[in-house]
Amino acid sequence: MVNAIDVARLAGVSRSAVSRTFTPGTSVAPETRAKVEAAAALLGYRPNLIARSLITRKSGIVGLAVGYMANQFYPSLVEALGTALAGIGKRPLLFPVAATGDNDPDIAEVLRYQVDALILASATLSSGLAGECRQRGIPVVLINRVTQDGACNSVTGDNLRGGSAIGQLFCRKGYRHPAFMAGLEDSSTSREREAGFTAALAEGGQALAARAVGHYDFAQAQAAMRQLLMARHRPDAVFCANDHMAIAAHITAQQEFGLTVGRDIAIVGFDDVGMAGWPCFSLTTYSQPIGAMVQAAISLVADGAAEAGTAPRHIIVPGHLIERNSTGG
Amino acid sequence: MVNAIDVARLAGVSRSAVSRTFTPGTSVAPETRAKVEAAAALLGYRPNLIARSLITRKSGIVGLAVGYMANQFYPSLVEALGTALAGIGKRPLLFPVAATGDNDPDIAEVLRYQVDALILASATLSSGLAGECRQRGIPVVLINRVTQDGACNSVTGDNLRGGSAIGQLFCRKGYRHPAFMAGLEDSSTSREREAGFTAALAEGGQALAARAVGHYDFAQAQAAMRQLLMARHRPDAVFCANDHMAIAAHITAQQEFGLTVGRDIAIVGFDDVGMAGWPCFSLTTYSQPIGAMVQAAISLVADGAAEAGTAPRHIIVPGHLIERNSTGG
Repeated sequence: MVNAIDVARLAGVSRSAVSRTFTPGTSVAPETRAKVEAAAALLGYRPNLIARSLITRKSGIVGLAVGYMANQFYPSLVEALGTALAGIGKRPLLFPVAATGDNDPDIAEVLRYQVDALILASATLSSGLAGECRQRGIPVVLINRVTQDGACNSVTGDNLRGGSAIGQLFCRKGYRHPAFMAGLEDSSTSREREAGFTAALAEGGQALAARAVGHYDFAQAQAAMRQLLMARHRPDAVFCANDHMAIAAHITAQQEFGLTVGRDIAIVGFDDVGMAGWPCFSLTTYSQPIGAMVQAAISLVADGAAEAGTAPRHIIVPGHLIERNSTGG
Repeated sequence: MVNAIDVARLAGVSRSAVSRTFTPGTSVAPETRAKVEAAAALLGYRPNLIARSLITRKSGIVGLAVGYMANQFYPSLVEALGTALAGIGKRPLLFPVAATGDNDPDIAEVLRYQVDALILASATLSSGLAGECRQRGIPVVLINRVTQDGACNSVTGDNLRGGSAIGQLFCRKGYRHPAFMAGLEDSSTSREREAGFTAALAEGGQALAARAVGHYDFAQAQAAMRQLLMARHRPDAVFCANDHMAIAAHITAQQEFGLTVGRDIAIVGFDDVGMAGWPCFSLTTYSQPIGAMVQAAISLVADGAAEAGTAPRHIIVPGHLIERNSTGG
């Protein structure tokens, strides 16, 4: 087995120069790096990151808990996070979590892999487990969710302002029976979007006419839409707490009730997933820019790693209203 | 720092019993396991999997190279693989690869993490790199792709039979100008599906009337569909090498050319992704059952780990034709 000393000898550099060449985030002169890489290639040397992690306590692994990949927002996020983490010499280790309900990842499992950080998308972390991570100096970042006590770093879209912009749009368009389809009742995203929405309706002299719960799930969103459309006073505009549910609602309204979306009923989502722009849906929505959210999460991972024990940070990434045909174009 | 000896002492069991309790795949008596887990919980003991990997050479990490999550087949696959790997005490470490072109993952990077196995979805591995993995006893499994020389284990759908079933359907339906939209020209999946398709057409006395290349990419599939539909002899039925391209073709035919799919033109895909069943597409397709493909891949990972050096295995998971409205219902 070739080791770093062999490489250092062949390259004519110090053992430490070899180590630095293969440690992400450390500096080494370009000509030294070139010599080391050439010698490593010649000798077939592979730095052993896992052995090194025992010394530096950096495994290069970031735990990523994510559930419900059927919602296009999450695969897009996973792909963007994977690329961004690679840029800082890290890789995401996936911990699938249940889409709904009790969705703490198995934290003992996560810690066994000595992750450098933990990113939770579409998942929450109980205060106890968040505390355990903090105690061990493992930065935790929630994406698209916050904990009730604000104890974890978080990156979210602008849920309040987005909900508000959609409420204002409904008033401007003159819809008379606005409805809201909630995601998970206990999720911060759904609560904040609804709060912004109903506040803007109230300012415009409107009140919520109907409400249903889609649990951020496709089939449950279809059931919620049926419930709204079979009520005696059918809503003329529905704000669904994410695009995934809005697409389910769109399909249900069109296929099961024969409604033309944008003419007979308005449907609005939240996220601006790729599909929202497809002409068959042409969904009005409020964007959550994945690139900016990923950059914010990476900065929290990097900072948090440097200074564990600092107060949690909550980054709100601005989005904007995108009007498409589902609100009459 | 609590160690295994402390746990063994408190539980009143041997050091080896503690080790076996926390090593996936080893056996330990239920009452012993219960004692060890209780003692570990009391002491806050966390077995250090990474340190153990230096001894057992098992990191519990399976490298997973996957690209182009916009194609719903891949997020569904990643989710199912994550769950199935968790069942054997392993976790997928994601290595994003480019969707097209030169998409070998950075193998040096993969090896540094001491992965127990490498699963490649939507990616190929050059013979050289496959050999390097074999030499190190790391099982490699390709999903939904095979290498030209067959040197790697693989799990695929039944591309030949699927293509053939779609060719037979076209003959039965009496389409006169059948077209094929290829994925990546050098991918085994696209070549096999086309071979099965054109052979069945020939048996039915038909010949391919037109052909375009969509590169398994949404925008490029839309461009390919435009090309087919603007030709002097417009095809009356198009088999696209996967659902992702078929959905792009569907949207283009309907929105840009005002065609009613299933009446003016037939469109067929391959995979049976969730969206294919949505009423707005109602896409005829040939299924690739993800659950069965994942189980096959897991069995190769497990077997391969046990007996490195055995001949590569190629598992073909059967699918079936699903007729929906896009071929006239």
